[in-house]
Amino acid sequence: MIREESAYEVIGDKSNFPEWYDQVLSAAGIIDMRYDMKGMVVWLPYGLSIMKFLIKRWDELFQKNGIEETYFPLFVPIKYCEKNESWWNGFKDEGYKVIAGEGNEIQGAIRPTGEPAMYPMFSMWTRSRNDLPIRIYETVSSYRYETKQTKPLIRAREITHWFEIHTAHATKEEAANELELHVKFYDEIYEKMLALPAFRVNKPIWECFPGAVGAYEYYSYMPDGRVMENGSANNLGQAYAKKFDVKYADENGKEQYCWMICTGNGARFIAAAFSEHGDKKGLILPPYIAPIQVVIVPIIFKGNEAEVYKYAEKVKTKLESQGIRVHLDTRSNMTPGKKYFFWEVKGVPVRLEIGPKDVEKDQVVVSTRFDAKKEFVKLDKLDITGTLSNIHNAMYAKSKKRLEEGIIFANTNKEVVKLLDEKKIAKVYWCGNRDCYDKISKIGEGFEAFGTSVEKKGSGKCLSCNKEAHETLYIAKSY
Amino acid sequence: MIREESAYEVIGDKSNFPEWYDQVLSAAGIIDMRYDMKGMVVWLPYGLSIMKFLIKRWDELFQKNGIEETYFPLFVPIKYCEKNESWWNGFKDEGYKVIAGEGNEIQGAIRPTGEPAMYPMFSMWTRSRNDLPIRIYETVSSYRYETKQTKPLIRAREITHWFEIHTAHATKEEAANELELHVKFYDEIYEKMLALPAFRVNKPIWECFPGAVGAYEYYSYMPDGRVMENGSANNLGQAYAKKFDVKYADENGKEQYCWMICTGNGARFIAAAFSEHGDKKGLILPPYIAPIQVVIVPIIFKGNEAEVYKYAEKVKTKLESQGIRVHLDTRSNMTPGKKYFFWEVKGVPVRLEIGPKDVEKDQVVVSTRFDAKKEFVKLDKLDITGTLSNIHNAMYAKSKKRLEEGIIFANTNKEVVKLLDEKKIAKVYWCGNRDCYDKISKIGEGFEAFGTSVEKKGSGKCLSCNKEAHETLYIAKSY
Repeated sequence: MIREESAYEVIGDKSNFPEWYDQVLSAAGIIDMRYDMKGMVVWLPYGLSIMKFLIKRWDELFQKNGIEETYFPLFVPIKYCEKNESWWNGFKDEGYKVIAGEGNEIQGAIRPTGEPAMYPMFSMWTRSRNDLPIRIYETVSSYRYETKQTKPLIRAREITHWFEIHTAHATKEEAANELELHVKFYDEIYEKMLALPAFRVNKPIWECFPGAVGAYEYYSYMPDGRVMENGSANNLGQAYAKKFDVKYADENGKEQYCWMICTGNGARFIAAAFSEHGDKKGLILPPYIAPIQVVIVPIIFKGNEAEVYKYAEKVKTKLESQGIRVHLDTRSNMTPGKKYFFWEVKGVPVRLEIGPKDVEKDQVVVSTRFDAKKEFVKLDKLDITGTLSNIHNAMYAKSKKRLEEGIIFANTNKEVVKLLDEKKIAKVYWCGNRDCYDKISKIGEGFEAFGTSVEKKGSGKCLSCNKEAHETLYIAKSY
Repeated sequence: MIREESAYEVIGDKSNFPEWYDQVLSAAGIIDMRYDMKGMVVWLPYGLSIMKFLIKRWDELFQKNGIEETYFPLFVPIKYCEKNESWWNGFKDEGYKVIAGEGNEIQGAIRPTGEPAMYPMFSMWTRSRNDLPIRIYETVSSYRYETKQTKPLIRAREITHWFEIHTAHATKEEAANELELHVKFYDEIYEKMLALPAFRVNKPIWECFPGAVGAYEYYSYMPDGRVMENGSANNLGQAYAKKFDVKYADENGKEQYCWMICTGNGARFIAAAFSEHGDKKGLILPPYIAPIQVVIVPIIFKGNEAEVYKYAEKVKTKLESQGIRVHLDTRSNMTPGKKYFFWEVKGVPVRLEIGPKDVEKDQVVVSTRFDAKKEFVKLDKLDITGTLSNIHNAMYAKSKKRLEEGIIFANTNKEVVKLLDEKKIAKVYWCGNRDCYDKISKIGEGFEAFGTSVEKKGSGKCLSCNKEAHETLYIAKSY
């Protein structure tokens, strides 16, 4: 195991979030930030195994729903990029290019996003209606020459473990249904895996790709009160099909452009979970993405090692037979107290302590990381599956409550300013007019109107123009 | 599902191997070669799922043995590369570099191999003996500006799905033991997963990294009689530790360099399996990496659809409960004959045909892809687990036999030439002297002495100098 150098340092309070975040990610063995390339980090075994649990989960989810995994090359021919000229002109400066050979000739762009590599192939794959729908995804790294300050897993130059679903359909209706399916994927990942609320907004049409029908964006409400984009689902309409020539011959032999959907997100999922659930002792992992759900720490005194280990092994076997991921910490050069600390930093949901007295009484001490509770439980009454489920539910309820209490209705600009000063998200009525949207975005320095509620429409007066308004718009500082 | 355009084209005979290979990989839906970047291809869902079964297997194998997965960035700082100056000077022209920003500044090298990104981190991680051993791996793509003719999965510019194990140890003995463990990994992958013989040779010391202790290389004996490097395991000694400053303080506080091992391979594994086992009908997949092990094709006539489907579902459920990967092909726009053909090209090991008469008799027709045999089996006698195991064993035995019969002892240069003309591998006595090795390599155009037998030493006369010789050396044409 790679030693995490800083595992024994004291972690600061979450009130200084940026510092806390970096400390926890290092101390828990998630990443090593010392790799000497801006915006790129080494994923350590523990961090990668958490990420991989989540990936396994989305693989199952997508594939169960008939979306198939593919892999497209890292290098994208420049001529593929140029098919979407407006995007490429805007993106060029943020993009990496690759050179090789004696003359250092440009070979292509480094994958900036999936579209320019994928859609030229879609164009080859779709001929008739029988070729549709195409429903594929890939999980890859994308690259962006980020000039702003980078932050591991949140704003990186190497955007690792990023999934992109891309689909092409014969009809607008089918595409719309596909989009709603992707919403279910996000909701399941947020609520069932990350124990986070699925906070989704409608993006105004002018923030979507030109020609698109619309888009959803998910946000995470971070501990510093800012919101972070955390997953988009885009109804591209026929806009990209027209750029990349993705079309099919209909029943009458007439060529039609396909309707396309693209949806993607990545490591920000776990960045949000770490940030939301963690505390001054370190991470608190949601049980369903924890690589180790239960750690057993034997309390050894000289002379009783054998019986305690034997009992601990028995408990481990019992739990594993129930499908629980268990680790028995047998390190002999570490006190139980240090082991507690070690696994607390890593956020293992449940710790079982077993000493000679417990063996005698056929019991274990169950200690839960989330609420720091401890209780003695007889082995035949031990229900870790239930405990993990309770922890998950409590973590979800807590984070949902924080979001719900964090979104507050504002009737005036002054109220908006006050709310954002208090690290809240403001919610206001808005008439639907772009000018008003832009004005509302400029109420304060660094403020951003970031989309409208997906819930049922109310009725009120637009914050900006005071006209009749049916949309509710969110405002916050953003990442 | 992405339509494989060429799935209904006739596949040529394997005697024209290069053409056969490209045709089969396209027709079976492994890859799409039309992506417009030399040496890079799109992995289609079926191909990727085979690759991922193998990756899952090596993940289990490595992790069960305590080797932990990590991820290192794609971009490698040039100064990291320069730590291994001799390698970097040689590699520069084959390497890709990445540029960005207004001045197109060079940002780094694109991962050419794991060492230059990993070992500078090793240097930070190893302080005392307690930090050792470090035993990690990553599964990534590597990049090489290949100027020779490329061939999908065999010689690519994007070398996808490549694992690299890198370990650092306090002692030479521990490193040597680690190397032998990696040999077991390879043997298991070859014999248990790919149904291929594990053909391992010792590399002469001058073909190892400068300063290394030694290396093993695995080879695949391809249908065209050439051999293909297919997995190396390198005992680096302290050579890299010295270049990258990977050292620890021993019990006396004295700094010692670590002993290091690196081992890696990737998609060539399945390229070899496809090539060895396939035939003129397409792929024949080894059962343990087949994403679909059994395909059920219902034989439907009007009026009996319901009962046949119901029975087919029952068979599917029964097999799945035994852990078998089953697909029921319910496509209504395709005749059974076309379905047979479709799944034969993809190399599905077992096909079950179920018609109305079979339902009546409570039986299925079991058709095996490997030997094209068909038999009626009563449902309560159906033992697909046994069938898959038999297929695996027969495939392994057949490929092992072809290799064993392909290696033939030669006493003269003339015999060597004759053997290689007949697409065999020649085996000769060799004294251990480098001059003789080089001379033997030059017996014929394109010949290569590619290492010595790992089996027990014999005794004879060196083919080149006629002196006493205890090593047996292999000669073949190579990829």
